[in-house]
Amino acid sequence: MYLGDMKMNNSAQADQKKYVIVGGVAGGMSAATRLRRLDENASITVVERSGYVSFANCGLPYYVGSVIKERDALLLQTPEALKARFNIDVLVHTEVTRITPDAKTVQIRRVGEESPAPSGTTELAYDSLILSPGAKPVIPSIPGIERALPLRNIEDTDTLMAGAQTATTAVVIGGGFIGVEVTENLAHRGLKVALVEGTNQVMAPLDPEMVAPVHDHIREHSVDLHLGSHVVAIGEDDVELSDGTKIQADLVVAAIGVRPDTTLAEQAGLALGKTGGIAVDATMRTSDPNIYAIGDAAEKTDAISGDASLVALANTANRQGRMVADVIAGREAADRPVLGTSIVQVFDLHVASTGWNEKRLRAAGRAYRAIHSHPSSHAGYYPGAASMDLKLLVDPETDLILGAQGVGEGGIDKRIDVIATAIAGGITASELTDLELAYAPPFGSAKDPINMLGYINRNLHEGLTESVQWHEVAGLMEAGVRLIDVRGPGEFATGAIPGAINLPLDEIRDRINELPDGDLIVSCQVGLRGYLASRILRQHGRKAKNLSGGYRTWKAGMDSAASKPA
Amino acid sequence: MYLGDMKMNNSAQADQKKYVIVGGVAGGMSAATRLRRLDENASITVVERSGYVSFANCGLPYYVGSVIKERDALLLQTPEALKARFNIDVLVHTEVTRITPDAKTVQIRRVGEESPAPSGTTELAYDSLILSPGAKPVIPSIPGIERALPLRNIEDTDTLMAGAQTATTAVVIGGGFIGVEVTENLAHRGLKVALVEGTNQVMAPLDPEMVAPVHDHIREHSVDLHLGSHVVAIGEDDVELSDGTKIQADLVVAAIGVRPDTTLAEQAGLALGKTGGIAVDATMRTSDPNIYAIGDAAEKTDAISGDASLVALANTANRQGRMVADVIAGREAADRPVLGTSIVQVFDLHVASTGWNEKRLRAAGRAYRAIHSHPSSHAGYYPGAASMDLKLLVDPETDLILGAQGVGEGGIDKRIDVIATAIAGGITASELTDLELAYAPPFGSAKDPINMLGYINRNLHEGLTESVQWHEVAGLMEAGVRLIDVRGPGEFATGAIPGAINLPLDEIRDRINELPDGDLIVSCQVGLRGYLASRILRQHGRKAKNLSGGYRTWKAGMDSAASKPA
Repeated sequence: MYLGDMKMNNSAQADQKKYVIVGGVAGGMSAATRLRRLDENASITVVERSGYVSFANCGLPYYVGSVIKERDALLLQTPEALKARFNIDVLVHTEVTRITPDAKTVQIRRVGEESPAPSGTTELAYDSLILSPGAKPVIPSIPGIERALPLRNIEDTDTLMAGAQTATTAVVIGGGFIGVEVTENLAHRGLKVALVEGTNQVMAPLDPEMVAPVHDHIREHSVDLHLGSHVVAIGEDDVELSDGTKIQADLVVAAIGVRPDTTLAEQAGLALGKTGGIAVDATMRTSDPNIYAIGDAAEKTDAISGDASLVALANTANRQGRMVADVIAGREAADRPVLGTSIVQVFDLHVASTGWNEKRLRAAGRAYRAIHSHPSSHAGYYPGAASMDLKLLVDPETDLILGAQGVGEGGIDKRIDVIATAIAGGITASELTDLELAYAPPFGSAKDPINMLGYINRNLHEGLTESVQWHEVAGLMEAGVRLIDVRGPGEFATGAIPGAINLPLDEIRDRINELPDGDLIVSCQVGLRGYLASRILRQHGRKAKNLSGGYRTWKAGMDSAASKPA
Repeated sequence: MYLGDMKMNNSAQADQKKYVIVGGVAGGMSAATRLRRLDENASITVVERSGYVSFANCGLPYYVGSVIKERDALLLQTPEALKARFNIDVLVHTEVTRITPDAKTVQIRRVGEESPAPSGTTELAYDSLILSPGAKPVIPSIPGIERALPLRNIEDTDTLMAGAQTATTAVVIGGGFIGVEVTENLAHRGLKVALVEGTNQVMAPLDPEMVAPVHDHIREHSVDLHLGSHVVAIGEDDVELSDGTKIQADLVVAAIGVRPDTTLAEQAGLALGKTGGIAVDATMRTSDPNIYAIGDAAEKTDAISGDASLVALANTANRQGRMVADVIAGREAADRPVLGTSIVQVFDLHVASTGWNEKRLRAAGRAYRAIHSHPSSHAGYYPGAASMDLKLLVDPETDLILGAQGVGEGGIDKRIDVIATAIAGGITASELTDLELAYAPPFGSAKDPINMLGYINRNLHEGLTESVQWHEVAGLMEAGVRLIDVRGPGEFATGAIPGAINLPLDEIRDRINELPDGDLIVSCQVGLRGYLASRILRQHGRKAKNLSGGYRTWKAGMDSAASKPA
């Protein structure tokens, strides 16, 4: 029934523009609906290989976990509804098999019986073609890999749900966003879940000292977490790891990563970028002037470095879909470089980041300042306050913010969103002090954690104090620098950095003469008292640097270092 | 025991600076501790009239409601702890009675037996004096007012708590932040509470159509809300309103408002600003070069207009306290104009705002664009999503954001903080489209409510659509403009704007010829379908403006208008 309309639309009408869109989720559907809002008269056809468009791809793991109870809740739109509201022709179960750029046509074919496309090969003409095919899962070539289920669309979800009904054990391969979400949701269903990650940490956007509490939290929820091992074989009811471990697995989920789906683009002779994504300019135009690419398949420009990058995020795809419709309709529009702000829920923990992390800055040889803090999500005296781990990365020359990470049980999304907004607005790290954020005891503190990051940064930027990082401590102490732990003796007794001398903050003024000669590191639990001590000591002529984030950050970093693969 | 140290510190030491700070909460204590961090050697004395410093003044209502269970939780610092950690001399139960600017001295006197100050009148010399006396409650001169309890400090709280033990009924006078918080907390204790507000709405920062759900919510929690009435007399066990109503009241709380406490400043001959606050420059210096004023008592500069303003917020006071210490210690620092971002919890509702509201813009004769939306706090298919009311006010020329308001059960603080940050960073309303905010289904949407505000604004700014405001509808319809409600017939039947014609969105293309001639208003439930309809109609040559925020905003506005005092 839709094809009838489509044929009509696709037939000759002199002033009617013909738009064909490959891929009907996120970016593709944003482009299609925006095009209709801009051009009532155009022919708009969306071709989608799976049986569903506009489904809630970010919700799939939660349906697997029965957190989302109704399958229908995942289906945000149907072809029928899109026809009625937007007069868009949606061809589900249909595949574009070939693009002929010179003729400005695509060949389509039916994928299964339910396709509304005609049998055999059909051609659709276009004035503009939008490629929004998304990304393909990375599938390692290991024995038994065909048993590993991906989770990319509704069909995958149905398969996984069917398997989960009878399974009692599962192995999830890959500790990225999807792997972690599927792990949580299978555990939520009551399965015994193992999560296998080839690197030494889950959630690559986090630095090692930030991810340690995430590892702890995953293990506290009875997940069997294997870091630094990869799967070498998948058997009929188990999985074998590179370290020889065998893990029972009624169900195996592959969430190893994704790469841009460039099959069609390559066939059409479109240029790819050095990242392997489809090369596009700021208007998302590919090397062919009538073909555009958006979303996971397209190469992005990184907001921090200006270099090419790949970012597979739903919000970026949606934004680009809408933007490219503006471009095609003749409106002035251009894409912005991508920061890659992201968040994931891991059981009760919220894990978010924006911009670059320290690993990436070090690898790129960029100068940076790293700041750690462990504030309370809201006023400590109001019930429900949760401790957070925040990290800010700053350009020491310009004082501009390069990135941020946050881990905690509340208030993380807000703080990372504020920092992402500050980066977009060119607000410097020191200017975070002046942000007026909504304060009442249930929501924050009179000096919000964001303001506090600004104060910490400003003190460093203006030279009032200096800091050392957790990973620098051992080297400095080996070189003879002494470490003064200014916590109380009770706190000190529960765990301290080897070789630390305990001198509580409130006694420093009276006992300053007891301190050893030479350079000092001061440390406390989270970094605040260490800062106060550093100010006292510096005014007494001592060289004293404060341990960023205190013992808590140091301990987390050392825990992560201990989980490194041999 | 502190006075001993203070005397010593306050005596002759040639190179030692002497700092005296009046007021030991928020700004005052921020200034004192920062001064110590910058100058180990200075003499720093804080004089506080009440018995407590650094108490959690924003937490007081929640202790009254037993949400905060321990009184000690309110006491963030003690004079003893401040002496030990910061070597600050804190004189509680002590009052500054006179400033002698020429001599650079203050006179202090004991207030009660527990004061550590000596008997009689003592003088303290200063190099710099910081006034942080806060604000005084407004006390109307009505019979029986002496029975109305304020809630400004720990002593007030103790009195109110004592009264609340035996009370079963209470009247709270004033529907501002404190009044609303006290109302909620007394209700939480089980008291039958009446809230009396002289204007036609609580929470003055909100525009009328934004406050209607707050009024509903307060009434749903069995609070007897009286708008547009004021208290004319307080009897022994009741309160009489201007409309003749008598309300039972074992307890009466006065939260009518505050004004800067300028008693000392006026006595010292310091200039006041036109707002009645102590006049200061950008470094918080008063008309006397050695005297600074911060916090609620000091006049601010408004961030939107650049005019003088009064803002009584804890975070502003804290920020100014720290900043003024930098100034006094010879560091480069200046205060920023104030946006006045604020938030309050009202039972389950969160109510926040930043910048200016529409009332204020209209009163000032400023051009503005008002945008309403009612998005979901996070992806609608993920459990726990709550509907929000958002409003954005934009300069139609520059596209800069002038203010925002949010009301809802979750996600409000985050969105208002992001907008406050966008204002600070000079991000335009249309650029909100490009903000990369952390998205996963539990936290937001792929197009976050913030991005959506940006899209709505951009469509208006670029002329793709036009909108009408709820308060313009009646006038336009009287002038002959017809209103088309594009919701489904079921929705239309549950309530609609009088005179509206129902034509569901999905039928518009087929039934466009049925529409009446002339200019049209289109409306739906929240504004989205109306926008889609406006795009279809405009492309068919019709003049059709969309009702901002849809029926929901219109209904709220009309409800508020109905609560206007006669």
